[in-house]
Amino acid sequence: MSDRASLVADLRRVDPAIDHLGIKIVAVDQDSVELALTVEPDMANGHGILHGGYVFLLADTALAYCCASLARMSMTRQAEIAFLAPARVGARVTAVASVRAVQGRTTICDVRLEADGVLIAEFRGHGSVV
Amino acid sequence: MSDRASLVADLRRVDPAIDHLGIKIVAVDQDSVELALTVEPDMANGHGILHGGYVFLLADTALAYCCASLARMSMTRQAEIAFLAPARVGARVTAVASVRAVQGRTTICDVRLEADGVLIAEFRGHGSVV
Amino acid sequence: MSDRASLVADLRRVDPAIDHLGIKIVAVDQDSVELALTVEPDMANGHGILHGGYVFLLADTALAYCCASLARMSMTRQAEIAFLAPARVGARVTAVASVRAVQGRTTICDVRLEADGVLIAEFRGHGSVV
Amino acid sequence: MSDRASLVADLRRVDPAIDHLGIKIVAVDQDSVELALTVEPDMANGHGILHGGYVFLLADTALAYCCASLARMSMTRQAEIAFLAPARVGARVTAVASVRAVQGRTTICDVRLEADGVLIAEFRGHGSVV
Repeated sequence: MSDRASLVADLRRVDPAIDHLGIKIVAVDQDSVELALTVEPDMANGHGILHGGYVFLLADTALAYCCASLARMSMTRQAEIAFLAPARVGARVTAVASVRAVQGRTTICDVRLEADGVLIAEFRGHGSVV
Repeated sequence: MSDRASLVADLRRVDPAIDHLGIKIVAVDQDSVELALTVEPDMANGHGILHGGYVFLLADTALAYCCASLARMSMTRQAEIAFLAPARVGARVTAVASVRAVQGRTTICDVRLEADGVLIAEFRGHGSVV
Repeated sequence: MSDRASLVADLRRVDPAIDHLGIKIVAVDQDSVELALTVEPDMANGHGILHGGYVFLLADTALAYCCASLARMSMTRQAEIAFLAPARVGARVTAVASVRAVQGRTTICDVRLEADGVLIAEFRGHGSVV
Repeated sequence: MSDRASLVADLRRVDPAIDHLGIKIVAVDQDSVELALTVEPDMANGHGILHGGYVFLLADTALAYCCASLARMSMTRQAEIAFLAPARVGARVTAVASVRAVQGRTTICDVRLEADGVLIAEFRGHGSVV
């Protein structure tokens, strides 16, 4: 296991909430971390569309793991998200987090979210080292 | 029941996901809508702190109900959130959504989030009438 | 002159750039600060529309004066702006800044921008005490 | 002159305001557009620091030229900026705009801003095709 993957595993152990949602760690690459979840009926509104809050939650979690993989365990201080398309029940949603900038204790991290390969949201968050 | 409360009840009926999280509609006032949830252990990370994604989810839901109360059923197109303090397991988190501006199909809605009366986050979202 | 107006005047003295743009301090009220400028031809693009950068600049300046009026001289650390309508050459653009939240060294300040009384933009910025 | 450079030149002709500020088009590459300006004393506050509004203005202009270079002439609808370090009078500030996502009429464009090679701000804006 690479150093970066090992750091991610460390965070994984103290974060049981992601099991509850079924979030998986797909990849820890040189420049990015990828997570995924499958949209459960409980996560959708009455129209069968994934609540935006879960999209944000997945993105925010990807930011946390991306920062952790750089040995910069962080809390999100500020974030913005643009919702571009819906995700339906049963879809596999992926979040690829990559670092845009590092300055002092701040890490600006961008996360691209796709549902079955279709872009559904773009997220930018500011992590602060804890 | 006021017209605004009645419109909120209409949205409530087609949104079973909020029961799953235990989100309650606390008040539908002239200028705002207030929701609340209690932080369950499943919503926390290993440090006993509410995941930011649930804070966002509550805020985003408050925006949806606030827009619905104005007969402007909306989807969030873009949102930003600042996290100011943590919320712990067992805390009661409230979200008060109020309209900042209305322009064409867009509603800019601000949501203040508190945990047991302490400010934990400020959210601004742009709803688009569906 | 009130204490708050006096604090604003102190900042005014060390900020000659706002003269260059013709920015005026219109009011320092209990809860807000209002600035104004008139759109000069130099500030417009080829379609006679005020460049968004000047709208942001006016909003950001209003944030600075609003924080200063609270004896919290601040630099903007992060800001977001939504552009809702254009402003034309000759229009009088006003910016009313009010405090949304104060937490530690951070002041979240909202600024509403109008051109001849029509809403043109909404700005939210995070000031950090210097 | 490449097609992309030619489209940028078309926008340039109808945008005299950028001459007024001394903004130069440095490069129109495959994936990005780079602009630059030199910080004049008029653009600074009393501490000799470039007003954030001009940083935003440069970033927003870079977004406009980047969208134009893709034959997607756009107006900025929403933008956020993080200020990371100051720029001083005399510094050369560059803005490199690249496209993050395209969806329907919306282009999400990221702009990195540096002063004499030091990162000073990160901007993300949403352009809407006009």
